[in-house]
Amino acid sequence: MTSDGQNYAPRSKPAPVCDEGEFVFAAVALDHGHIYGMCNGLTEAGAQLKWVFDPDPAKTAAFAERFPGVRVATSEREILEDPGVQLVAGAAVPAEHAALGLRVMGHGKDYFTDKPALTTLAQLAHARRAVQETGRKYAVYYSERVHVESAVFAGRLVRDGVIGRVVQVIGMGPHRADLPSRPAWFFERDRYGGILCDIGSHQAEQFLYFTGNTDAQVVSSRVANYSHKDHPGLEDFGDCTLLGDNGAAGYFRVDWFTPSGLSTWGDGRIFILGTLGYIELRKYLNVGNPGAGGDHVYLVDGGGEHHLAVAGQVGYPFFGELVLDCLEGTERSMGQAHAFKAAELCIMAEQQARRAE
Amino acid sequence: MTSDGQNYAPRSKPAPVCDEGEFVFAAVALDHGHIYGMCNGLTEAGAQLKWVFDPDPAKTAAFAERFPGVRVATSEREILEDPGVQLVAGAAVPAEHAALGLRVMGHGKDYFTDKPALTTLAQLAHARRAVQETGRKYAVYYSERVHVESAVFAGRLVRDGVIGRVVQVIGMGPHRADLPSRPAWFFERDRYGGILCDIGSHQAEQFLYFTGNTDAQVVSSRVANYSHKDHPGLEDFGDCTLLGDNGAAGYFRVDWFTPSGLSTWGDGRIFILGTLGYIELRKYLNVGNPGAGGDHVYLVDGGGEHHLAVAGQVGYPFFGELVLDCLEGTERSMGQAHAFKAAELCIMAEQQARRAE
Repeated sequence: MTSDGQNYAPRSKPAPVCDEGEFVFAAVALDHGHIYGMCNGLTEAGAQLKWVFDPDPAKTAAFAERFPGVRVATSEREILEDPGVQLVAGAAVPAEHAALGLRVMGHGKDYFTDKPALTTLAQLAHARRAVQETGRKYAVYYSERVHVESAVFAGRLVRDGVIGRVVQVIGMGPHRADLPSRPAWFFERDRYGGILCDIGSHQAEQFLYFTGNTDAQVVSSRVANYSHKDHPGLEDFGDCTLLGDNGAAGYFRVDWFTPSGLSTWGDGRIFILGTLGYIELRKYLNVGNPGAGGDHVYLVDGGGEHHLAVAGQVGYPFFGELVLDCLEGTERSMGQAHAFKAAELCIMAEQQARRAE
Repeated sequence: MTSDGQNYAPRSKPAPVCDEGEFVFAAVALDHGHIYGMCNGLTEAGAQLKWVFDPDPAKTAAFAERFPGVRVATSEREILEDPGVQLVAGAAVPAEHAALGLRVMGHGKDYFTDKPALTTLAQLAHARRAVQETGRKYAVYYSERVHVESAVFAGRLVRDGVIGRVVQVIGMGPHRADLPSRPAWFFERDRYGGILCDIGSHQAEQFLYFTGNTDAQVVSSRVANYSHKDHPGLEDFGDCTLLGDNGAAGYFRVDWFTPSGLSTWGDGRIFILGTLGYIELRKYLNVGNPGAGGDHVYLVDGGGEHHLAVAGQVGYPFFGELVLDCLEGTERSMGQAHAFKAAELCIMAEQQARRAE
């Protein structure tokens, strides 16, 4: 576990779902460290990482060191025009996610972008249309669920009806700001999309997922810059209430206030309230328990209080499912409509947000 | 710790603030078990419990067993007309809190009611006017802060600036329904006031207190009956977002979904987010840690993650302060405006609540 959320890149045991060379992908745009987690996941699932490209040679050099054997392309075009590449994974500046995706899909390849999916409703309309027209995938790395074993495990508990009907999900997504390490776009709202759009996107996705909703409304939302007045483009706080079509309620808070004394980048929590029980996830640490690691599931049901430490027990099936989805045209890993709906909700939340100070 | 929230009645070491007989009070209306906690707190602070009255002789008999030496009055009037009684503590049906208070203050005595303070804005206007006209106190037993050592302790941390400026408070107030034990009024919305007004009142009070606000707005609120359709007057879920005058944000959820397997009546939590750190309170248990008891404070600041188990370490200064406030006309325990503002907010939240199902 790194102490730095921007470089959160879990590893797991290799679990290939395809033969060597059967699924080839490339990495384009290394603006966010999430690209490492995305490529870890895909290569562990058996995908072959052929190319990398970024205009910044320092970034590609660092990347090539972590993924030996990858070829550094001289341009994005070199990758897009390689018919052997089936998928492009990208972690561009958020405002550029959609444009890269349109280029990728326009070249007949599937796209796998870091969150947020995109940053405006206009981009979303373009992306939806391009998916329709090209038949390609616009997959999104909602890492705080798909790359977190406790969250994967909680999904199974909910699916199995262990806590009855889910009536509410509360999410807390605090992050360490670590400002000196941040690139310029981190401070430019139009480029990162606003806090609810950016790190809030994980939360909107989890709300839809854990409540089993295909659609929802943003009831209220707020953003603030409480404590970083020297960076007027930074939003250091955001929150949002959601109401799902099936009646389930949602609330989430995201912020950049992780204290320097916390042993990791953020005390991410999820509380899933059901009619027969509830689940709490302590994703990245069990606060006040040094050495306990992450991925703690607390399940309370009719039978008692259960503490399930699931680190290393669950893995990350998302990536193998994504590879199979691309190979077979299925939606095992995540529905396209779901990925876009989460994006729509967090963009709406950001747009409608009241400013608190 | 009882497993039953309605009978939550903490005890502490006696810490008298006045001489024997210097402060005399009575208990009138025993509809909610909170009256035991209220009387424990006052007697531990040195107040002398002289009388009890309730129309139900079974209730007064049970009460007299817990407070030996108390005299069972034959009518409320007998108590109100006793010039030796300085304060009346009451746990009437919520909709009747205000009427009892008006009678008590009208007889020149201070009033100490179980939460909620009252249930309608009209009652609130009457109570405010009566306080003005009589100069008496209308104190409220917001037990989930004043009778919880971890919450008292957190107040000191916040006051001392340990976590910087408080920018948000999230409260979760799940409660065990235990329907067979409940009186008729529990299922009649106009009598208990609605879930946001009733158990939500603790939360509104804590928001104001921990953020240091004297006023706030209700931004959005919801109530639902997700799972008790055979009791149409019961609201089993409610939530609310608040915005304080000083810019701090608030969110709380209350519900009646405590699973039967939980070792106590509810996994009450408070998360206080500051610009320099945060505090989590696990008030009544540390879930998944059988035997760990309640009152766990987790403080994360620049120096690290601190787990402070404060049960038995803090006490309940509210009650001694309340006795002194009554004797000396001060507001050490809680400001009258604060107690009423919390009531106003939770009544507004209830009135404006959108219905989710």
